[in-house]
Amino acid sequence: MRTIYRPLAALIAGALILQSPVALAQASAAQAAGKTRPSPLAPGEIVAQSPKRDWVAIPASDLLVMDLAPDAKGKPRRVVIQLMPAPFSRGWVGNIRKLAAARFWDGLSINRVQDNYVVQWGDADAEDKAKARALPSGLTVIPESDYITNDPSLFRLSHMIIDHKPDLLADPYWRGRGYTFVNGMPIAIDNIRKSGLPDPNPPAAWPVHCYGMVGVGRDLSPNTGTGAELYVVIGHAPRHLDRNIALVGRVIEGIEHLSSLPRGTGGLGFYTAAEERTGITAIRIGTDVADLPTYEYLSTESESFGRYADARANRRDDFFIRPAGGADICNIPVPVRRTQ
Amino acid sequence: MRTIYRPLAALIAGALILQSPVALAQASAAQAAGKTRPSPLAPGEIVAQSPKRDWVAIPASDLLVMDLAPDAKGKPRRVVIQLMPAPFSRGWVGNIRKLAAARFWDGLSINRVQDNYVVQWGDADAEDKAKARALPSGLTVIPESDYITNDPSLFRLSHMIIDHKPDLLADPYWRGRGYTFVNGMPIAIDNIRKSGLPDPNPPAAWPVHCYGMVGVGRDLSPNTGTGAELYVVIGHAPRHLDRNIALVGRVIEGIEHLSSLPRGTGGLGFYTAAEERTGITAIRIGTDVADLPTYEYLSTESESFGRYADARANRRDDFFIRPAGGADICNIPVPVRRTQ
Repeated sequence: MRTIYRPLAALIAGALILQSPVALAQASAAQAAGKTRPSPLAPGEIVAQSPKRDWVAIPASDLLVMDLAPDAKGKPRRVVIQLMPAPFSRGWVGNIRKLAAARFWDGLSINRVQDNYVVQWGDADAEDKAKARALPSGLTVIPESDYITNDPSLFRLSHMIIDHKPDLLADPYWRGRGYTFVNGMPIAIDNIRKSGLPDPNPPAAWPVHCYGMVGVGRDLSPNTGTGAELYVVIGHAPRHLDRNIALVGRVIEGIEHLSSLPRGTGGLGFYTAAEERTGITAIRIGTDVADLPTYEYLSTESESFGRYADARANRRDDFFIRPAGGADICNIPVPVRRTQ
Repeated sequence: MRTIYRPLAALIAGALILQSPVALAQASAAQAAGKTRPSPLAPGEIVAQSPKRDWVAIPASDLLVMDLAPDAKGKPRRVVIQLMPAPFSRGWVGNIRKLAAARFWDGLSINRVQDNYVVQWGDADAEDKAKARALPSGLTVIPESDYITNDPSLFRLSHMIIDHKPDLLADPYWRGRGYTFVNGMPIAIDNIRKSGLPDPNPPAAWPVHCYGMVGVGRDLSPNTGTGAELYVVIGHAPRHLDRNIALVGRVIEGIEHLSSLPRGTGGLGFYTAAEERTGITAIRIGTDVADLPTYEYLSTESESFGRYADARANRRDDFFIRPAGGADICNIPVPVRRTQ
């Protein structure tokens, strides 16, 4: 379990993280050498310079790998998804592992591409009982209460972020509350325990619909979806879906193979003709993919992540003339790279 | 000058706009007829049912029409942009009118497509003096102060939105301030005058980098760009660009022709080979386009817009189980349609 600690606290307190002891030492060294103070680093430069110890390997068993049919020029198209870590969305993630093991998606297709919203895949014939592909046995039916977690293991760490100034990380989607990152995923936190204060409501947390997040299509409530029908966000964060649909992961490589697909011209961006659909060759858990590289993400506990988040919220590199002074959670994507 | 009045005020006060006299009368009539209360309308249904009087025509003179080379199947690709209304970005919009009149962009290309960020077009050889296309004469050089307006005509109306609860429309990008819509454009407002209170800072307003907004590429400060190099946002709102780059309009039709283009594989999403670029056949002001339909947007002063914004922030239609209770400005796109 990893959550954000010092970096976010420093950001929240309005401290200039670039004035950390290390940065000040660098600046002093530059001055001693007769150089002018270096330009503040851009977020990408901070990530590129971060030490290896600040990166966390993602196990192949937590990756879902989707291979699409090759593109018009014959080039392979692979999309790599990091599955949602515990304690979030466990039922759906378990179902997805079973669906992948059963090769449920192989030969199915991308059926919906709605601009500024989602790309969705699964069985195009799911609603036609005569044609629908059979689901593997053993899938779990999941209650709506599982859109949110009250797992106490998460909130043992929550005192780390309670001292926030509500207006600095204000968010219209959970007012006066907080956000954090858990194992590379953007997470909203509500009813954070304040030591010494009464606690009228249990703490709660849920994943957030940022760009690239993967969710579970469903029918009307109380249906919550099995995980057989999945979508990825390809537009401005549709945060009204938070706590209304399960989120099961995040695309960490290859999202351009989905986001650049032709938009569907039917209702909700569904394709109107079967030949418009892009075929899925295979979807597998990473441990079942022979040629998969390994991936790592920038620990959200690390000082590097704190400096990166601060730089995203306060751009001081040469191009910028006015730092925003804040950022929304979806504008601080957690950096991921192939293992170096 | 149109800005939001009653609808936003009602939203801000937490009133359920669906309990307006009209809605209550409809509910009562349904009950009297022995029917169950109808399901609340989805945002799109509210827009579809809005009366004609709530729609505002966009003059063809305020449209910028970009025709791309036909796609691989020979289909035409047209993108229609509504130019930024007064009092925002006047220098750049004036330059764009001159560039279109001079046919500056004809035969140039889309040169950059960066996933979850921008599509950018202009002269791919702009930085090569030997090859660069000459700019038309008479372009204005615009100061950075014009990223923001203090035009008093805008703030005569601003008392309409000062009574907001800061936490309901909280936004990490202008904390404790407000937002509104002006002629269909998302606008941030700062230092709103409160009657009877001292006024330490002049009011200020600026357009916001939502999905589909069109901005002006520039070199390092103090350069502010001429308008010859333009981009459109195709991802999560890059709000750190607000007040750092001029915004000159919003795509109202055809954005899918840009957002679905193949991503560039060079730095910042630039194409590495000339043949990857998509050609621009012509860019014209709407009055110079023979076959252009007319367009209208849903007045942000109208009751319909207020109900629409409220429904975007509080989804109560059948699919949703938990209304968010708020929305960020970029998740309330102003509806536009061909004139009916």
